[in-house]
Amino acid sequence: MTQPFEDLFAFLRFPSVSTDSRHADDVRACADWLLAKLADLGLATELHETPKHPVVVARNTHLPDRRTVLIYGHYDVQPVDPLHLWTSDPFQPEIRDGRIWARGATDNKGQMLAHVLGVEQTLRENGELPVNLIFLFEGEEEIGSPNLAAFLHQQRDALRCDVVAVSDTGMVAPGVPTLGYGLRGILCCDAILRGPKCDLHSGLFGGAVANPAAAAARLLASLHFTDGRVAIDGFYNSVRPLEDWERQMWSEVPGVSDADFLQVTGSPSLFGEPGYSSAERVWARPTAEVNGIGGGYQGEGSKTVLPAEAFIKLSFRLVPDQSPLDIMQQVTRHLVSHCPPGVTVEVRPGHDGKPYLTDPNSKFGLAAQAALRTAFHAEPVLIREGGSVPIVQTFREILGADTLLLGLALADAQIHAPNENFPVENFEAGIRLNQALLNELAR
Amino acid sequence: MTQPFEDLFAFLRFPSVSTDSRHADDVRACADWLLAKLADLGLATELHETPKHPVVVARNTHLPDRRTVLIYGHYDVQPVDPLHLWTSDPFQPEIRDGRIWARGATDNKGQMLAHVLGVEQTLRENGELPVNLIFLFEGEEEIGSPNLAAFLHQQRDALRCDVVAVSDTGMVAPGVPTLGYGLRGILCCDAILRGPKCDLHSGLFGGAVANPAAAAARLLASLHFTDGRVAIDGFYNSVRPLEDWERQMWSEVPGVSDADFLQVTGSPSLFGEPGYSSAERVWARPTAEVNGIGGGYQGEGSKTVLPAEAFIKLSFRLVPDQSPLDIMQQVTRHLVSHCPPGVTVEVRPGHDGKPYLTDPNSKFGLAAQAALRTAFHAEPVLIREGGSVPIVQTFREILGADTLLLGLALADAQIHAPNENFPVENFEAGIRLNQALLNELAR
Repeated sequence: MTQPFEDLFAFLRFPSVSTDSRHADDVRACADWLLAKLADLGLATELHETPKHPVVVARNTHLPDRRTVLIYGHYDVQPVDPLHLWTSDPFQPEIRDGRIWARGATDNKGQMLAHVLGVEQTLRENGELPVNLIFLFEGEEEIGSPNLAAFLHQQRDALRCDVVAVSDTGMVAPGVPTLGYGLRGILCCDAILRGPKCDLHSGLFGGAVANPAAAAARLLASLHFTDGRVAIDGFYNSVRPLEDWERQMWSEVPGVSDADFLQVTGSPSLFGEPGYSSAERVWARPTAEVNGIGGGYQGEGSKTVLPAEAFIKLSFRLVPDQSPLDIMQQVTRHLVSHCPPGVTVEVRPGHDGKPYLTDPNSKFGLAAQAALRTAFHAEPVLIREGGSVPIVQTFREILGADTLLLGLALADAQIHAPNENFPVENFEAGIRLNQALLNELAR
Repeated sequence: MTQPFEDLFAFLRFPSVSTDSRHADDVRACADWLLAKLADLGLATELHETPKHPVVVARNTHLPDRRTVLIYGHYDVQPVDPLHLWTSDPFQPEIRDGRIWARGATDNKGQMLAHVLGVEQTLRENGELPVNLIFLFEGEEEIGSPNLAAFLHQQRDALRCDVVAVSDTGMVAPGVPTLGYGLRGILCCDAILRGPKCDLHSGLFGGAVANPAAAAARLLASLHFTDGRVAIDGFYNSVRPLEDWERQMWSEVPGVSDADFLQVTGSPSLFGEPGYSSAERVWARPTAEVNGIGGGYQGEGSKTVLPAEAFIKLSFRLVPDQSPLDIMQQVTRHLVSHCPPGVTVEVRPGHDGKPYLTDPNSKFGLAAQAALRTAFHAEPVLIREGGSVPIVQTFREILGADTLLLGLALADAQIHAPNENFPVENFEAGIRLNQALLNELAR
């Protein structure tokens, strides 16, 4: 096995599960291994303690008049259960069928180590890097990065940079280099509907008082028009329309046709906002989604209860230029004003994150495209992501830098699931990508 | 303590919990005690085995040209948990504040034993009963009487009677004798809505496919108009309108005003079909009720999942002359035809029972009213019940006899709940009621 794979396997063997306190020492050992690897490259390394898992920072000697590039990644991983569904041990990496199988292979150890090994390769070839480099690797991404924003604030001068690069998103299809230039934001909230003071017998009282589960259903139904559009007053007011060039471009992106969405989801049919393709709906249009609903009897068979309360859990995916705070106000106003008679509604705001959008054809965007072209020997596609990566907006707000999303994850990478895997060719392309990227960003 | 209370306490001490197989011997011992008590009265007794708990039958010597009256009751009880909420041991009866406290005190041992002791009193006073009497006591009412219909079929000649009397329903208020002459029927069903083949990430897919939880809400909301009326096509077609005399009569019944319903339920406000009082809505109008709804994330906080499926559990309370089979067809047609796009719906019929209505001013109804007047020294009120007692319809179908519902349960009797209780005065009135009832029915 060549050195890059020996390094990756060593990195993958640490069960650095950040959410599980029994693995705290493993997370720490993984950070120490990473620190030693970076020091071996000749970089200046720092281990920063946080209330939980440490942040690892490394940099070359910075020179004036060179671009400063911050590469972000995370060395923590998701839990592995259900363990019995894994074909091989999640922390004993194997190569089978051209893929590396292990927890973290794609998310994010494989993608982030490709950047480290790209830097190693460049240093071996040239003795120096073409840019001022900052590696920023955290150990808490899988638990929501609770300490990273505070760390960025505290270290904002030391971490000042021209641009950020992250490989922690997806490629639309194997062999198709993908540059992400947008992310949806998010807003979560719960609502509880309350009626009678306790569960009632539906025979003795049914008909005389409102049923909170029926009221929850009516309230939820009021969130959408029947054609799928969100019916909240003002919801689309700040939505930036899709550009013609985006729609044209996306119509040619492989792997994201309506037929692809139908096949991947297994839904009986597609359904969404009229006038948009599936990719447009997911990447550039906002949603109101029910993540959970519950009330009354949940067991087998029937129980003739009129429940005292019911809950709904909502999340809204937001697009530029929607503001989570404004939308929360609109949602609250809607839920309160549409609450059916005979029940009360309590709305509880949850976490949120702003949407993100940058220009894929800015000078850094063009540099990223060129690097992708070089690494993959193919023309890159430019997409937005339907998911939310709040740290990207935090980089913009605290460090003043935009982020290049250079995802190497395939749709069947099984991230967060059993049998996570990463194609050997994507790992090798990631190493080339890092080398080309730093060269292009240096121009 | 006088003999009636000694008998009642002995009866209440048996933990005859029919649903719990660990109490099977207790149910049997309770049946044996009852059998011995009835034999002591000089009645001919029979213990009939069923696949589970036995049926106890007792009768006096039947003479031709006398009315035959069947009195039904049940000697099994509900479980007692949560035990720690009981002020005194559920199977060590106590008298406090003028009430008897024990599991089964009201439901149904107290009410049914009052009939037994009324017969004992009459026999002591007169040496004979004015009617041909059949006591029919089962041990499986609290588990849905799974073997009673078959028993009635098998014994239909031996159990032939002119009228049935049951004390297992409610009084509208303390001291107000109550004759029930109607019951709502019931129809239960479930529906499952299915969308994508597995739970999806609401960021990566939200907007492109229908959400089964949102679809379930929209489907549920379609069941009612916003004013509370059921929106299922044909639902009200067979509903027998309330008679003017019923509406007039019910408007004067104590304890069931709109203000009473508001106070008892604790709902923020009343809500139901326009044009009817709460009592009319519950006793004489049909409903479509959500007993349970569930889908997606049920835990604390948020999880941005787009669930693969959602379920709804429905029950319909039916009134004369609605047919459960017809309504099930209408409901299925409605759910299928209103299923939102992008999901499928599967409808699963559940159990059902027909509504019941008889004439409170028939000769037997008038006899029951006279008996109630005698027992309580007050004018009886005539009501229907919102609940469903399917056995009453079974008596009509198999034995050809109508049922007099002579309920002695108060609203705060805590049946099926901790601290079940029965007023001493209702127990004593029940004994008088039985004596007066048999006299009146004999005329």
